[in-house]
Amino acid sequence: MNIYDIIEKKKHGLTLKDEEIKYVVKDFTNDIIPDYQMAALLMAIYFNGLDVSETYTLTEAMIESGDKIDLSKIDGKKVDKHSTGGVGDTTTLVLGPMVASLGVPFAKMSGRGLGHTGGTLDKLESIPGMHIDLSTEELINNTNEIKIAIAGQTSNITPADKKLYALRDTTATVDNISLITSSILSKKFAMGADSLVLDVKVGSGAFMKDIESAEELSKMMIDVSKKFNRHTKILITSMEEPLGYAIGNALEVIEAIETLKGNGPKDLYELCLKLGSKLLIMNGKCLSEDEAVILLEQNIKNGLALEKFIELVEKQGGDSSYIKNPSNFILSETKIEVISDYTGYVKSIDALLIGEVARDLGAGRLTKDTVLDLGAGIVLNKKIDDKVKKGDLLATFYTNKDDEVSAAIKNIKSAYQIGEKNKDPYKFIYKEIE
Amino acid sequence: MNIYDIIEKKKHGLTLKDEEIKYVVKDFTNDIIPDYQMAALLMAIYFNGLDVSETYTLTEAMIESGDKIDLSKIDGKKVDKHSTGGVGDTTTLVLGPMVASLGVPFAKMSGRGLGHTGGTLDKLESIPGMHIDLSTEELINNTNEIKIAIAGQTSNITPADKKLYALRDTTATVDNISLITSSILSKKFAMGADSLVLDVKVGSGAFMKDIESAEELSKMMIDVSKKFNRHTKILITSMEEPLGYAIGNALEVIEAIETLKGNGPKDLYELCLKLGSKLLIMNGKCLSEDEAVILLEQNIKNGLALEKFIELVEKQGGDSSYIKNPSNFILSETKIEVISDYTGYVKSIDALLIGEVARDLGAGRLTKDTVLDLGAGIVLNKKIDDKVKKGDLLATFYTNKDDEVSAAIKNIKSAYQIGEKNKDPYKFIYKEIE
Repeated sequence: MNIYDIIEKKKHGLTLKDEEIKYVVKDFTNDIIPDYQMAALLMAIYFNGLDVSETYTLTEAMIESGDKIDLSKIDGKKVDKHSTGGVGDTTTLVLGPMVASLGVPFAKMSGRGLGHTGGTLDKLESIPGMHIDLSTEELINNTNEIKIAIAGQTSNITPADKKLYALRDTTATVDNISLITSSILSKKFAMGADSLVLDVKVGSGAFMKDIESAEELSKMMIDVSKKFNRHTKILITSMEEPLGYAIGNALEVIEAIETLKGNGPKDLYELCLKLGSKLLIMNGKCLSEDEAVILLEQNIKNGLALEKFIELVEKQGGDSSYIKNPSNFILSETKIEVISDYTGYVKSIDALLIGEVARDLGAGRLTKDTVLDLGAGIVLNKKIDDKVKKGDLLATFYTNKDDEVSAAIKNIKSAYQIGEKNKDPYKFIYKEIE
Repeated sequence: MNIYDIIEKKKHGLTLKDEEIKYVVKDFTNDIIPDYQMAALLMAIYFNGLDVSETYTLTEAMIESGDKIDLSKIDGKKVDKHSTGGVGDTTTLVLGPMVASLGVPFAKMSGRGLGHTGGTLDKLESIPGMHIDLSTEELINNTNEIKIAIAGQTSNITPADKKLYALRDTTATVDNISLITSSILSKKFAMGADSLVLDVKVGSGAFMKDIESAEELSKMMIDVSKKFNRHTKILITSMEEPLGYAIGNALEVIEAIETLKGNGPKDLYELCLKLGSKLLIMNGKCLSEDEAVILLEQNIKNGLALEKFIELVEKQGGDSSYIKNPSNFILSETKIEVISDYTGYVKSIDALLIGEVARDLGAGRLTKDTVLDLGAGIVLNKKIDDKVKKGDLLATFYTNKDDEVSAAIKNIKSAYQIGEKNKDPYKFIYKEIE
């Protein structure tokens, strides 16, 4: 077996054998197969794809490349949620407390990836005192005690994926369905997930640019999960605009608190109800989505969901006064209001561009060494289908980087496409696949 | 401009701009673009191709990456020949003296590539005393004096191609029409060629496995040459069996001598007449191929072509007694006869496999550091369409590597496909394209 013949095989569209895939993952992780041969193979995979069986084997090989977390000591059927990466995605901070407040165990372990804004871990760290470096034992115990824990990945999880992702990221081979599937599922399964709802994003701000490829990705995720005997459900949602109003770490925590109080953005709340109802059914708590939605809305109204968030923060050492009184959060010093130059309706908001602006304002990482400004970010004042008059407030942003202000104003304005009213109202949730 | 966006562009099948191609070649040659990004781009090029204009720019950028040889001081219109790489290809050693003996200047500068058997330079070095490290001045002077010179490449010619080829060779990206074209033409044009006949090989022993891809390659070669205002003619020839009988360095020199005496293999002789007549027309020596063939055959019969070979050898310090008496050549010590196990007709001879056997016997290089055994190799006793009886001699081989004997017997036998008589007699020259 040698890598040259394997590249040649995939180049000609042939199916790789299990032992070939395992050899590639092992020898690449151990620095025996050089980056340049792996890059050629990745591009051949981009063009000729991997079938379900190959993708399963790749996922399995990546799981086997590192440690596996055993979460079987968590009582009851735990659930997890993952998004393929969006802009302003505050879902976990709302969804976790919602389902945990109904007694459904939500134990989440996250990596700290690059992104336009920080990940869930960064958002949590904007709460003073909050620590996310739980041991596996603490994660298990906390989940058993209060039904929720959110921790950073401590062990050596899927080193193969880590190395492969870094290479894909520099060789334009990220956007392949099998490579995305194996990357996400290997991490999730190595970290002990069994019932999983995946939020597959589609649109300008996402890996999947159109609904067809999002559906193809979803099908692959479900098929590969089945081969692992894991239950994965998919929601395909739009990224034609950022999710919610807030993009930025502290800003998104504030938004999560407001949503848990019932005052959040419509799209974020709708998404959390939809994802939450799927998790409740997978856990066995409910039999129908209608029933689940009633329970979830109840715990928003009666405050139990917000209380669960406070409990989570206190359990992990955070200062819950910030949750009780969000005005305690200190935002970045410079506050700028961006005004509309046009009158009309918001047709779309370039989520990718908004994400990049937020990153440049200090909210996200360009390299893994970037130190985040947790108080930086953008709050959108107008969303798709909103009516706008010239001079109206489009968005407000916060930054400590005054050099970035002019570019940010320009880019936020150009992210907003304003014109005639869209024929059909914006449909945020495209499709559910199980 | 950055390499990531260029990979992404080619991945999506878009046309690269001139400045993008020039930037890639320059920064890759200067070790600024890493191998892994170049490998991804090469594989994207494999799948989406480069058009004539992109291939021209790539060729030009590779020429500009190194020195250019000025051969304009050679009197008359010089001609050159190149083959896309076959097994047992002794053509240059026959063709050069044939056309030079008619007063047509043949100045050839060769690289010393890897190959199943050595290149032209290695073959010449099996003649004791022969030196091929001529300066450009010597190359020009010798060609002006005796109309022929064959030299190794001394200057820093197309370093971009050298580096790129090494990467293609390990990433399964050799067999792309634009990459082959730019590699061959950049070297040829940097070394001062103007009138060129290309022998494009097709079949199991060649890069191009079928006639369609060989035609596509030929068209690209001609189109790109035109953009350089150079005249290139193409002959597409078969590699369904090795060319001639001999595969190995000294063995091929002996075969060249026999061919120059008029006693050579039919296919090799036919090819040299065809290539030679094209060169004579390009030089202006003849107006028609018929006329050219008469002149070329004349100089075989009257011994002038062989005399020209002797003159070439003497001019470059070689011991011409070997040419006058080929039995002087010392072949490797172990001589083995391979006998047919079957009765029937030779349907094909796997040229690639024969080439690999010859290499393993000592005639070729597996890595650039391999020291060749110039006396090793194979002589085929049967060729396509020959009748064979069980027990007949199929081939004879020479080696100093006794460990390789068993494998060589087995592989040579399996290279011969023996069965019913082919419906149509073997057609060696497929097509001429101008």
